[in-house]
Amino acid sequence: MEKALVVLSGGQDSTTCLYWAIDRFGVNAVESITFDYGQRHRTELECAATVANFAGVANTCLPIDTFAALGGDALTDPGVEVAGDVDDSTGLPNTFVPGRNLIFLTFAAAYAYQHDIGHLITGVAQTDYSGYPDCREETVEALQRALRLGMESGITIHTPLMHLSKKETVELARDLGALPAMAFTHTCYNGQRPPCGTCPACLLRAKGFAEAGIADPLLVAQ
Amino acid sequence: MEKALVVLSGGQDSTTCLYWAIDRFGVNAVESITFDYGQRHRTELECAATVANFAGVANTCLPIDTFAALGGDALTDPGVEVAGDVDDSTGLPNTFVPGRNLIFLTFAAAYAYQHDIGHLITGVAQTDYSGYPDCREETVEALQRALRLGMESGITIHTPLMHLSKKETVELARDLGALPAMAFTHTCYNGQRPPCGTCPACLLRAKGFAEAGIADPLLVAQ
Repeated sequence: MEKALVVLSGGQDSTTCLYWAIDRFGVNAVESITFDYGQRHRTELECAATVANFAGVANTCLPIDTFAALGGDALTDPGVEVAGDVDDSTGLPNTFVPGRNLIFLTFAAAYAYQHDIGHLITGVAQTDYSGYPDCREETVEALQRALRLGMESGITIHTPLMHLSKKETVELARDLGALPAMAFTHTCYNGQRPPCGTCPACLLRAKGFAEAGIADPLLVAQ
Repeated sequence: MEKALVVLSGGQDSTTCLYWAIDRFGVNAVESITFDYGQRHRTELECAATVANFAGVANTCLPIDTFAALGGDALTDPGVEVAGDVDDSTGLPNTFVPGRNLIFLTFAAAYAYQHDIGHLITGVAQTDYSGYPDCREETVEALQRALRLGMESGITIHTPLMHLSKKETVELARDLGALPAMAFTHTCYNGQRPPCGTCPACLLRAKGFAEAGIADPLLVAQ
């Protein structure tokens, strides 16, 4: 049986990927991994655990304390706010570290290696807003090569959302039967449940559901 | 001024690399980074700080708590001893995680990015005993590509010891004026100072110095 590991943040995209993996590999062959890197909104970790449980797959949460130590020099630079706050100009937490996705995938690959799992699935996309260079297809391909060489493994990284718009991701979620799980996901940059509805992440999510002509189960559930 | 960051473990090889970097970039352009990943022998961290101080460069120590969580399932599997102990069959700590060097270099690259440093130096070698697949040249080259793409940077990873024998590494240390600093390094798998002299790491170090016809300053200093 080929096994698969989904990097699950508890958000819309990684939840869609979880159902993509279940569809492709079977629910008994899939597990999920989540990283506790000191994110401001602890609800993310709870959402990931809830989504995994709802989908019937195991969820392992691994700590990473390094980003907070690296983040924005917040610990040493009095001009930077405490790590974990959001930068208004970018909407990113100032614990954001360049190449963070490379770290997530490398730790996930190490876990996969230890558990004889040959497939990694991540919800990164180079369309829409994300634009992080470590989420682009050629970066993921280069990392896959480094992981295969560095671990002497045949690991494959799957990025089912790489070239989809938000509208198409919502349609994929519908086709995979992932919509009910969307009620347990989070997206809001402000960490609010019900979501604030006005931050860039809420607006982008709303746009995707609207263009797909589908009601967002997260909002319906409130 | 081109700046350089040395991944410094406090051992013989990374100390040689520190002096290689100082020789090439100038002492004022070099700093060092060390990872506290829960290694059993805390003396490693002290050695790294002492070596950096002796060489006149800054040393930043970053925590990584993830390896202990991943390591050998020690936290959940009663059949595995507590993380940090050494596996007798391999001489490796059972906190060893596949691809660990990829993680070190990626975090180092993130730090370098934040501090406008364009050169990373690591003491990995594919000769002699190491044989870790994540220390091989083609792995490092693949990772360099992933880091450049993932961080949109022009970072260069230097591996001055990649093809040297232990004898040649000792000769390089001599030529770079790094021998005095060797008195502050550690190598012993058993974490002893003075070193035990009988573990595989002590024996390999002794062989390199013997073949180069040079007295080991660590032993002379005792």
